[in-house]
Amino acid sequence: MVDFVDARARLGRPDQVAARSTAAHLDRLTKPRGSLGRLEALAVQLAGIAGESPPPVPEPGVVAVFAGDHGVLAEGVSPWPAEVTAQMVANFCAGGAAINVLARHARAGVVVIDVGVAADLSPADGLVSAKVRAGTANLAEEPAMTAEETTAALDVGVAVADDLVTKGARCLITGDMGIGNTTPSAALIAAFTGRAASAVTGRGTGIGDDEWARKVQVVERGLARTAAEATVEPEAVLASLGGLEIAALAGFIVAGGAARVPVLVDGVIAVAAGVVAEALAPGCASFCVAGHRSIEPGASAGLEHLGLSPLLDLDLRLGEGTGACLALPVLQGAVRIVREMATFDSAGVSDKQA
Amino acid sequence: MVDFVDARARLGRPDQVAARSTAAHLDRLTKPRGSLGRLEALAVQLAGIAGESPPPVPEPGVVAVFAGDHGVLAEGVSPWPAEVTAQMVANFCAGGAAINVLARHARAGVVVIDVGVAADLSPADGLVSAKVRAGTANLAEEPAMTAEETTAALDVGVAVADDLVTKGARCLITGDMGIGNTTPSAALIAAFTGRAASAVTGRGTGIGDDEWARKVQVVERGLARTAAEATVEPEAVLASLGGLEIAALAGFIVAGGAARVPVLVDGVIAVAAGVVAEALAPGCASFCVAGHRSIEPGASAGLEHLGLSPLLDLDLRLGEGTGACLALPVLQGAVRIVREMATFDSAGVSDKQA
Repeated sequence: MVDFVDARARLGRPDQVAARSTAAHLDRLTKPRGSLGRLEALAVQLAGIAGESPPPVPEPGVVAVFAGDHGVLAEGVSPWPAEVTAQMVANFCAGGAAINVLARHARAGVVVIDVGVAADLSPADGLVSAKVRAGTANLAEEPAMTAEETTAALDVGVAVADDLVTKGARCLITGDMGIGNTTPSAALIAAFTGRAASAVTGRGTGIGDDEWARKVQVVERGLARTAAEATVEPEAVLASLGGLEIAALAGFIVAGGAARVPVLVDGVIAVAAGVVAEALAPGCASFCVAGHRSIEPGASAGLEHLGLSPLLDLDLRLGEGTGACLALPVLQGAVRIVREMATFDSAGVSDKQA
Repeated sequence: MVDFVDARARLGRPDQVAARSTAAHLDRLTKPRGSLGRLEALAVQLAGIAGESPPPVPEPGVVAVFAGDHGVLAEGVSPWPAEVTAQMVANFCAGGAAINVLARHARAGVVVIDVGVAADLSPADGLVSAKVRAGTANLAEEPAMTAEETTAALDVGVAVADDLVTKGARCLITGDMGIGNTTPSAALIAAFTGRAASAVTGRGTGIGDDEWARKVQVVERGLARTAAEATVEPEAVLASLGGLEIAALAGFIVAGGAARVPVLVDGVIAVAAGVVAEALAPGCASFCVAGHRSIEPGASAGLEHLGLSPLLDLDLRLGEGTGACLALPVLQGAVRIVREMATFDSAGVSDKQA
């Protein structure tokens, strides 16, 4: 695959033969049928995604953290200064952030893709420079990105996914960094699910009631402007509301599906990207697994829209890919059950009496 | 510690100084305060349990699977024949069961403790022979165990916990095997929480409506007999309703708390043991972490009674320690966050604006 258009064209459907084969095998293993609950459903889903039974163990190699800045920060939607995006990228490259710790714990590395940070970043190990633009425009006032920038950001995500899969990744994990990015995420989720801004806008990294009310108004202004501009095509809505890392994540998700590799989705930013990806490439959500339920209300709205039920619910609201990383062992455990457990026959265990 | 009486006498309380120190450190790390949700609360709990800040990484070394048989199987409460307990012990020792796979995935081994299997088991690697009695009596008709057997089973659990902690375990994981053991678990949970038998009796490994109604009646008979015998002391209630592996698990839990090592609790069997342990040694639940929410109704009732909120909710109903093993990476991740993340100062990241 070279770009987003190719990835979208290659997107298929989960393989029902492989899925059924794994389901049948699960019923021969030394446990009461169905007793591993969602692990069994996950294993079946992963077989369908890979088109192989048993599916490969979902090893990601690395977590891909897409970073970008947001012009909408000018509206006072976050108590954190924009420079923190670049500072956190440096923290990721130095190994000190939460995602570094949780990725290491899941035996994965971290790669950071600068798709739109509003600062010149020094080269560093683990940093991929793919800057499309130095931060988006203010979505409350004008389109966050041009059509060309949107296409370029989608293509960045596709290229990163392709590179990881070529290097052997059998799972893609979505990560994100961008001060202010819960605002475009809320706007995109509202636009694509039809929910009210107030129903999908959350408190992000921590704001009070007054700031929250202002943030809702900012999302409403972005939605009203987008509607007034008669923007309806998914690409144009994405361009209008941004952001660069969200667009790249949408490309990343579609490319994962096209490569028949499961995409483990993190919090509200990744869910917004998933909602965009599903609008751009219908069916790609069937290649996704929701890692966790962020406490951001937009995350739950987006997951419901996508028909995804999260594996974990631990009141997280950090992003970076942290919730997805925490869920990875569950996903891997589901596959290892299929690949490694003994059957009733092989273990000489009596089956349930009819 | 030599026995259960010693363990109970040594049970202390979580250390609030260590807990506060870890809470304060979490607020200096490069993330919005509180944004790691339950992971932060877990890290604080573990610091209090260990009396150290940061707490040690909860490495279990092995999962301890306590195995026993149940006389109540004569009442037709399970579709699985009793011989499956011994067959599954062999499967555990051969590495082919679900708990073996999930323990390996969590970088732990499996040790099986025969505290009451109704068969002579051949020596095997990973099998500890500590048989108190070859299966319990039928709890519907008579006390499942004598007072002496109950004490002996409690002591087995204490000895296993002490041995693991001496060998370096910084977390204990509860595992169980025993065809029919959801019946004594339901009876114990009903007895200690005051709930009705029908509210805490589940379908175990898979029974239909008629079998479920019969199982509820069996639990009711056990409870009525216990009440008629004027049995009120926790030890006597445990003896009356069984089982041997549940008593051993109760000892194991109390000994973990006494050693200031967190106990990661699995499904309904372990929850029943936890309810017993808390009755025998009030306060020990504060040293427990609930790994998951089993779909058995008694598990939710018992967890609520203990004030524990499970980490995972994946519709599991297998036991063996599988749900606890799946939750272990979350527990470990919480501690590694405290131990490994950079602070705002050390990483040169700007803090939130006041």
